[in-house]
Amino acid sequence: MQETPSLNDIIEAAERIKPYAHRTPVLQSAWFNDQTGAELFFKCENFQKVGAFKFRGACNAIGKLSESEGARGIVTHSSGNHAQAVALAAKLNGYKSTIVMPENAPKVKVDAVRGYGAEIVYCKSTIDAREETAQAIIEKTGATFIHPYNHPDVIAGQGTSAKELLEEIPDLDAIIAPVGGGGLMSGTLIAAKAMKPGIRVFGAEPELADDAFRSLQSGKIEPVLRADTIADGLRTSLGGLTFQIIQTHIDDLVTVSEVSIIREMRNVWERMKIIIEPSCAVPLAAIMDKKVEIGGLKIGIIITGGNVDLGKLPWDDA
Amino acid sequence: MQETPSLNDIIEAAERIKPYAHRTPVLQSAWFNDQTGAELFFKCENFQKVGAFKFRGACNAIGKLSESEGARGIVTHSSGNHAQAVALAAKLNGYKSTIVMPENAPKVKVDAVRGYGAEIVYCKSTIDAREETAQAIIEKTGATFIHPYNHPDVIAGQGTSAKELLEEIPDLDAIIAPVGGGGLMSGTLIAAKAMKPGIRVFGAEPELADDAFRSLQSGKIEPVLRADTIADGLRTSLGGLTFQIIQTHIDDLVTVSEVSIIREMRNVWERMKIIIEPSCAVPLAAIMDKKVEIGGLKIGIIITGGNVDLGKLPWDDA
Repeated sequence: MQETPSLNDIIEAAERIKPYAHRTPVLQSAWFNDQTGAELFFKCENFQKVGAFKFRGACNAIGKLSESEGARGIVTHSSGNHAQAVALAAKLNGYKSTIVMPENAPKVKVDAVRGYGAEIVYCKSTIDAREETAQAIIEKTGATFIHPYNHPDVIAGQGTSAKELLEEIPDLDAIIAPVGGGGLMSGTLIAAKAMKPGIRVFGAEPELADDAFRSLQSGKIEPVLRADTIADGLRTSLGGLTFQIIQTHIDDLVTVSEVSIIREMRNVWERMKIIIEPSCAVPLAAIMDKKVEIGGLKIGIIITGGNVDLGKLPWDDA
Repeated sequence: MQETPSLNDIIEAAERIKPYAHRTPVLQSAWFNDQTGAELFFKCENFQKVGAFKFRGACNAIGKLSESEGARGIVTHSSGNHAQAVALAAKLNGYKSTIVMPENAPKVKVDAVRGYGAEIVYCKSTIDAREETAQAIIEKTGATFIHPYNHPDVIAGQGTSAKELLEEIPDLDAIIAPVGGGGLMSGTLIAAKAMKPGIRVFGAEPELADDAFRSLQSGKIEPVLRADTIADGLRTSLGGLTFQIIQTHIDDLVTVSEVSIIREMRNVWERMKIIIEPSCAVPLAAIMDKKVEIGGLKIGIIITGGNVDLGKLPWDDA
């Protein structure tokens, strides 16, 4: 069983990633405050290195490796933000990284990972193929595998975002974040509940990827049943460690429709002039659709990333 | 002849608009620094009220009116950012505004102006019809006309952006901004040259709307010959006052291609995760295409606005 990270681990993670990661800005929006009757504080990880919070976790996990571990290299499988995060964090630490990617991964993502100096190994587009390919590399090279979320050091790294947010806005009543594999939500829960007992922490998921919602109801990890939500960062099931942390600490977890996700993504682009991924709009959709009670409160929202294919926007087909 | 505003007018404008306007952030981008070998500082007026620097000028001009002038109302003709700027600045000052708009103005722009509480009067889509319609309203109501750029108080207001930028980054070697009607460039020139003698100030225009470039060559105001540049904020000719200020003070004015404008607009969206209008990408295109000499220097770029039709992006047809 992996050990649950503590606030102290998050404080150490913050020190460890400080030379590499941005302290991202916290933005407000008069328009969203007006619409919601609350005060919203947007913690903008879309401005983080590689354009997503994932850099925090990868940077912390890789930074914790010994010289000799690092010298044997890093490996992960991902076609998303975690791939870029591992590639850049490895490079900044002077280590070699290998990213296992499905052979149908979009060229723009492959190029981005290669641009950070990683080696790419292609495999078939199944979870089994990815894991087997990564395992073969580990056995051959002794490289360290960095899981995208079910990893205490990754979780501690992701928790540094909520830590910074609470340092900047100490009187928040609640924080809301999306739930995919649960790494961000786990780190957020640990940081927020330890720094400010009594604060409420909400999770939000697409209705089309409501595995965490169902897992909390059934008491065991439920799989994602389909992979067609626009919120591509949230098509992942929980891991054992993240499920346990979320189950223990979360105040509520709600689901939102695709229509609401696309609407709030566009509202942020139009009103705030910042580029956010669909996943970021999920907590905002929960707020705007009144799935969580926030009237008059001060609410932090973790804006997870800004990596979007600008040639194919969700409202182009509308 | 209208009087040229001074740095003192800009300082007074800054005080006057302070309760209403945002002090916009200055962002940097490691990627653009890497690409250019310079240090670029983006003054982000896309985060300004109404999403554009135009709010500064309108707010200053309207704020300077006497109570009795204001009570007779404000009028302007515009289908762009100036229309929204006047509508909101009038509302915040408690005055009535009337915006003359062409009958084919996009509904989204009409709705935005109406949303700020302005009355809209439609006219035919010609300059003559706009001016006649505005003149008729002035004669009937005694309303004050606020020109979008050829107006000393508007110019002084626009100059507050460069003033803030130089306060935040005092050791800039140069500032570059786009040139449309010349209000922003005039205010930038007055602020920068008075605050920091020796600083260089560059203008940039689309090749397809190179009227200011031709005006500087011929020594008289040349009209825009066509209206099809993607940089819709820059399809305007200079006015008498802005031409005189630009002619006196500007260090260089360069032109850039449509391809470069669209490329740099997309680069900013992808790399910086902020939404900018095509007009903002014009100075950046000049830098990336090496039309101005900036190697090793600290360069301020005025990012003019972020109002874009998200349903129709310039790269959608590519």
